[in-house]
Amino acid sequence: MLDVSAFGEDFGERFFESDGVARLAQWLTTHAATCPPVAEGTRLGAPLQRPSKIVCIGLNYSDHAAETGAAIPKEPIVFFKSTSAVVGPNDDLVIPKNSQKTDWEVELAVVIGKKASHVAEREALQYVAGYCLHNDYSERAWQMERGGQWVKGKSADTYAPLGPWLVTPDEIADVHKLPLWLTVNGQRMQNGNTKHLIFNIPFLIAYLSEFMTLLPGDVISTGTPAGVGLGMNPQVYLKPGDVIALGIEGLGSATQRAVAY
Amino acid sequence: MLDVSAFGEDFGERFFESDGVARLAQWLTTHAATCPPVAEGTRLGAPLQRPSKIVCIGLNYSDHAAETGAAIPKEPIVFFKSTSAVVGPNDDLVIPKNSQKTDWEVELAVVIGKKASHVAEREALQYVAGYCLHNDYSERAWQMERGGQWVKGKSADTYAPLGPWLVTPDEIADVHKLPLWLTVNGQRMQNGNTKHLIFNIPFLIAYLSEFMTLLPGDVISTGTPAGVGLGMNPQVYLKPGDVIALGIEGLGSATQRAVAY
Repeated sequence: MLDVSAFGEDFGERFFESDGVARLAQWLTTHAATCPPVAEGTRLGAPLQRPSKIVCIGLNYSDHAAETGAAIPKEPIVFFKSTSAVVGPNDDLVIPKNSQKTDWEVELAVVIGKKASHVAEREALQYVAGYCLHNDYSERAWQMERGGQWVKGKSADTYAPLGPWLVTPDEIADVHKLPLWLTVNGQRMQNGNTKHLIFNIPFLIAYLSEFMTLLPGDVISTGTPAGVGLGMNPQVYLKPGDVIALGIEGLGSATQRAVAY
Repeated sequence: MLDVSAFGEDFGERFFESDGVARLAQWLTTHAATCPPVAEGTRLGAPLQRPSKIVCIGLNYSDHAAETGAAIPKEPIVFFKSTSAVVGPNDDLVIPKNSQKTDWEVELAVVIGKKASHVAEREALQYVAGYCLHNDYSERAWQMERGGQWVKGKSADTYAPLGPWLVTPDEIADVHKLPLWLTVNGQRMQNGNTKHLIFNIPFLIAYLSEFMTLLPGDVISTGTPAGVGLGMNPQVYLKPGDVIALGIEGLGSATQRAVAY
């Protein structure tokens, strides 16, 4: 792993819209030798700058819909997560003040590479800059017992660890065939595969782009498979000291420690 | 109206978090004479840079809740609007491709001046940088007939005209006593007063700050009074050529022309 900070750009909207991934690859052909390695134990930030929006898809694995008692959606369920929730992949999860029901959700996140509006499904993958691992932490009481819309339970600080890496599409043989998993204190809780997505990635990009413009660097989080705390009997929620580990094949893994507010 | 572009900053997160409003006022004491006036007919942009989030409050006037057939909420209904929807106050409203039910909503928007997390209600107004006029355009079919969450119907391009001005709190005697109105083709449709807000501004800031961190420059749109197209019998929606005018006492007025995609 190389420290490319000498490249001198944040990985945000301007980077992506100016074909930054290709420019960085080109830059590396002549500068890789002078980039220092990232030292073991260095804290990693999220692999992209705070996006304009994080668009999340609800109930997009049939086993997760079933465990929450919800019907299989006819169309994607769309909600936003506050971008102020973004942290690095291994940063602490701060259980919010007054939270009783902080839950986990391993998800594959898509990072948009160029402005997308009314995109055809067959061309949608051309709009992808890369993929990364996301834990869509959720406060279930705030999401579902406080009236109205889900955003209330999705937006606390540290609720969106992203990374470790932004993996470019050429590194992934089939993004719809990736195992993903999550453990709490070493116990396997989630164990899914992106082949079970109800709405796949090209469909989601095309669909969302009918309702809003996706900007370079925006994140689409594609939903979580079964195995969240909400779906257990009795329900299980996170407490300080818990260690949450998660990963997606080809996208790396991350570990978060739950701490009190 | 003076052109203060020589001040050299966008009115975004960094501006607000570094007490930009006070710095700009101070700068004007010595530079106002050299600032050119803004020429008549100049296109105005939104009075702030694209925020990290636009937090909207649903059904926050009892007459509007009644006209939509919804109950008075026990707690604020919270949803996000995509920040890619922001345009200037008098820019065209582009009726989105495939939209049949584009509707209007005059609203008072609060702009946050400093980072707000777990703010006490009695201190909440200290976190306000100013207020501005907002038309929270909404696609009712996408909001309510396409499954799931409201964000789908709130986020199209040009759906968030902001301005003309960011009005600082010292310019307003009582923000909870402001008439607000909206006309379509000269016909009065909305005619409200912020004294009828169900949840007032200090309450909303304190409430939201329990669930998420509000960043400097973030926008809270406080909801709309009765008189939207959805509430009429038969329902009325916008079509190309319609002219929408709106205003709030002390915050100025704006006019948008509806155009086809």
